[in-house]
Amino acid sequence: MSRVFVNIALSLDGYMTPEGMTMENWDNPEYKNWGAKWGALTRWIFNQEHFRENLKLGPGGETGPVNDMLRRTMERTGVNIMGKRMFDAGERSWPEEAPFHTPVFVLTHEKRDPWVRTGGTTFFFVSDGPERALELARDAAGGRDVRISGGADVIQQYLGLGVIDELEISLAPVFFGGGRRLFENLSDAVPSYRIAGVIDGPSATHLRYERAQ
Amino acid sequence: MSRVFVNIALSLDGYMTPEGMTMENWDNPEYKNWGAKWGALTRWIFNQEHFRENLKLGPGGETGPVNDMLRRTMERTGVNIMGKRMFDAGERSWPEEAPFHTPVFVLTHEKRDPWVRTGGTTFFFVSDGPERALELARDAAGGRDVRISGGADVIQQYLGLGVIDELEISLAPVFFGGGRRLFENLSDAVPSYRIAGVIDGPSATHLRYERAQ
Repeated sequence: MSRVFVNIALSLDGYMTPEGMTMENWDNPEYKNWGAKWGALTRWIFNQEHFRENLKLGPGGETGPVNDMLRRTMERTGVNIMGKRMFDAGERSWPEEAPFHTPVFVLTHEKRDPWVRTGGTTFFFVSDGPERALELARDAAGGRDVRISGGADVIQQYLGLGVIDELEISLAPVFFGGGRRLFENLSDAVPSYRIAGVIDGPSATHLRYERAQ
Repeated sequence: MSRVFVNIALSLDGYMTPEGMTMENWDNPEYKNWGAKWGALTRWIFNQEHFRENLKLGPGGETGPVNDMLRRTMERTGVNIMGKRMFDAGERSWPEEAPFHTPVFVLTHEKRDPWVRTGGTTFFFVSDGPERALELARDAAGGRDVRISGGADVIQQYLGLGVIDELEISLAPVFFGGGRRLFENLSDAVPSYRIAGVIDGPSATHLRYERAQ
């Protein structure tokens, strides 16, 4: 059966996105300094060979355990699930060949026809709640895994449903001081996790947790 | 010159102490399940040889990089600084030979004479603010380092003063869901840190950060 996992970048003070990084300020990265904060959070990823390849940024790039993790994450992922806010931001910033290459289920209250992109990404809009989206995702995953892509509120909902098997967190030494926290509003139904592996990179520490049995 | 450092345990959701772990409920660890949460946070420390030796829990215990870290932390520490809430809790729970073996400066609004314990720990009560406490601590450190012991609000104050050279965080895979967060109310004056080392233990990941120059 497909495993359900999260793989995200997190600031040392626990935020997924900095304050000010919103649709209204998308073209204004100086606003509350969100651009520099986001850059510090994701610095580790831009030179990785797999990331460059996937976003067609040109040949070359670092190889090694971090690159292997990125490649493995992409290869194992049969479906992505994301929230509407993350989709809205991506709709403006992803290239025409969106970087998923899988079906993507978008949690929303809005009805909308599927949106097909080149390169194998199709966005499906689900208005029946996170449990239904996960059912659809498992059916569509073709034996591969289901990635809960974000944002924070969507991850919190799935943590509360007790369905997340693996949490992968790339923890970067940057303070956002505000924004959207990954871990808050957690219900007592969140399962227990154990440490499953650590990759010690120079600008992020890649922490892997698996649900304790 | 003495270096100023923090060495604390942190839950995966960013809390230093769980909700309910207060003086009123000190003898009632079932209250909001604080005892089990605290136990999960600090599980990694109890079997370490140095910890057992320091608290006179008997011979034996694990050796290795985590134990070396504990020993190095104790050996480098010339002075501790802590808040009044942490002192109040410790006053009830430390053995007569308090586990510091250094001068300890307690930030408080209350005037009180120094409190001398066996084994080299003397508590001094400072009501002139965190900067004055750090001056006194540097003078008393005898060339060793100054540890900001906690709690969260005291660490936040010193982060905001820009004086913390090293942050050592033992991150345990437990969710508190509430309590006292380490990283909040951070001012923009908090310095930048870089990753300085990681020890990958089975029940906590020991993260070390140094101030970026």
